[in-house]
Amino acid sequence: MPTITILGAGYMGSALTFPAADNGHRVRLWGTWLDNDLIRAVQEGQEHSRLQTRLPQGVETFYANGLAEALAGADLVINAVTSEGIVPVMTHAFPLMPQDALFASVSKGFWSGPGGNIQRLSAIIAPRAPSPRFRYLHVAGPCKALELCRRVPTAVHYACEDIAIAQRVAELMRTSYYQIRPTSDLAGCEVCSAFKNAYAIAIGLFDGLEKAGRVSQSYNTKSAAFSKAVREMALVVEAMGGQLDTVFGLPGMGDLLVTAVAGRNRTFGELLGLGQMSAAEVVEYMSSRDQLTEGYPAIRTGWYLVQRLAQRGKVRLESFTLLQALYAMVYENAPVWETLQRFQWIEGE
Amino acid sequence: MPTITILGAGYMGSALTFPAADNGHRVRLWGTWLDNDLIRAVQEGQEHSRLQTRLPQGVETFYANGLAEALAGADLVINAVTSEGIVPVMTHAFPLMPQDALFASVSKGFWSGPGGNIQRLSAIIAPRAPSPRFRYLHVAGPCKALELCRRVPTAVHYACEDIAIAQRVAELMRTSYYQIRPTSDLAGCEVCSAFKNAYAIAIGLFDGLEKAGRVSQSYNTKSAAFSKAVREMALVVEAMGGQLDTVFGLPGMGDLLVTAVAGRNRTFGELLGLGQMSAAEVVEYMSSRDQLTEGYPAIRTGWYLVQRLAQRGKVRLESFTLLQALYAMVYENAPVWETLQRFQWIEGE
Repeated sequence: MPTITILGAGYMGSALTFPAADNGHRVRLWGTWLDNDLIRAVQEGQEHSRLQTRLPQGVETFYANGLAEALAGADLVINAVTSEGIVPVMTHAFPLMPQDALFASVSKGFWSGPGGNIQRLSAIIAPRAPSPRFRYLHVAGPCKALELCRRVPTAVHYACEDIAIAQRVAELMRTSYYQIRPTSDLAGCEVCSAFKNAYAIAIGLFDGLEKAGRVSQSYNTKSAAFSKAVREMALVVEAMGGQLDTVFGLPGMGDLLVTAVAGRNRTFGELLGLGQMSAAEVVEYMSSRDQLTEGYPAIRTGWYLVQRLAQRGKVRLESFTLLQALYAMVYENAPVWETLQRFQWIEGE
Repeated sequence: MPTITILGAGYMGSALTFPAADNGHRVRLWGTWLDNDLIRAVQEGQEHSRLQTRLPQGVETFYANGLAEALAGADLVINAVTSEGIVPVMTHAFPLMPQDALFASVSKGFWSGPGGNIQRLSAIIAPRAPSPRFRYLHVAGPCKALELCRRVPTAVHYACEDIAIAQRVAELMRTSYYQIRPTSDLAGCEVCSAFKNAYAIAIGLFDGLEKAGRVSQSYNTKSAAFSKAVREMALVVEAMGGQLDTVFGLPGMGDLLVTAVAGRNRTFGELLGLGQMSAAEVVEYMSSRDQLTEGYPAIRTGWYLVQRLAQRGKVRLESFTLLQALYAMVYENAPVWETLQRFQWIEGE
């Protein structure tokens, strides 16, 4: 019986125990030091307080200090901490993992280092693995944890440069409701996952403008923004060696859609579009309610990355007018309504 | 001063008087015999009853019997009747139009003739034009009339095989809030416009399933359906000589989005997904409320077209599982929840 160890007991990590357990595997869920309350509730037989449901029977849970025990003999290790937590967590986890354990990560975002050094998470994590046989697998595509744990049909891509590994991991995790396409386009999937949070904020802004009465209804403009976002994402993916199919499929367009119509990044946009708080105030307001807004740093990281790609001649900066406008509205207090009203949705005009 | 004559005084025809008038043109709005009440209200100085706003000052209105007068000296004629009305209306209009008048059409759909003969509207209309210099221009992309007439930023494609004509018409109609990209991909734009109504119903079905309590929330599946719809549309567009850029831009993905989250085709899907009426009953219910559901016939027309393309070796029928499932649910009473729950969103599994 394969053993699957999931690191991080928040929304997504805990939701992944469902397909893993439904496949009959031994499932272990390890919580970081931030997850103590979540783990305690599960151990006491209560609902997982975020998922609002009980985890599958037989899932073994571990507190932060039980990392070695959680990883012992694992066949597959799934990282489900945030993109900010992945480096510290995996630094601890690597020496405790079996050398040939498979690895998958659901973290979405870039690693942002000193001096504007921006990297794909795989490029930061893979070199820290003790085994030269380690391969990074990224899980991309539209997957809300609250739906996955209710077994609502979900389709994602498992991306690993070694497609055979993507296929093996997919085989372990696939169920009738958790459908998985193995792909070798790790670059494309990682870039899409990191950028969709930034662009989802654009759609949320219009929700805020509608609520503020600046515009009655703005489906036309939201659709234009969605199309422009996908176009800009396609340019970055191409520049970073990914495939266009990925952008126009579940990891890009599909994940952008779910993020743009539901979730915290949309909420961030809505609160900013309402016009009563600055972006920094919205972040503070949402943080105080335990709501992470990954899109907020993603806009800055994305804009810096695109500037660097432009310097190296990989993209034309003028093609990224939406990302630039998002940066201006979120980090430079550009007025939201005025910026979006005069925005040129059609390029080359 | 150029004269622009708009045929059809419903939602879209009337909304187009706004950019036309804002550009300082002489604007004429002609109503079909179905539009008498709309024209009368406007002539009496009231609001347009569908748009719920007054038309711009100076717009001249014409009843059905004033077609010759409305078309006399027109520089641009815009067809804004339904895809079912375009043939009879243009049959009357052509002999009354100046030989060199420009032409644009906002009708979205295929022409469906006897014996399963399905054609792009341009292929049916262009041969009926008396002038050999006639060029068909199709307006594609996400554009809700209720927003256009409120000057909400909107971006569309004007598609004509002769790009110079697309540019000339775009020049006449473009405003700061009505942004237009001229394109020569008439085939791609027409196919996208016709298919998006069919696929939008798929998204609406989930809204119905949610309301019926069959599923709590289904953003994951809606996103998977959206991605699959775009993929299937891309295959038809390629088979019919259109460009992929068009599918992954405003005419395809963009228009599908606005149709899937708002509008009558989504409503049709929702009512069917609720599970209390058959598709035919939903059509009857909506018709009795003056609500046209273009997606209902579009599913049948689309499915027949794809079968014909497959017979000619242009597509593989197995690639169109979503369209086939839609056809089964809408025309063959296949159960909605069971069909969608076991649907394979990932191909080749």
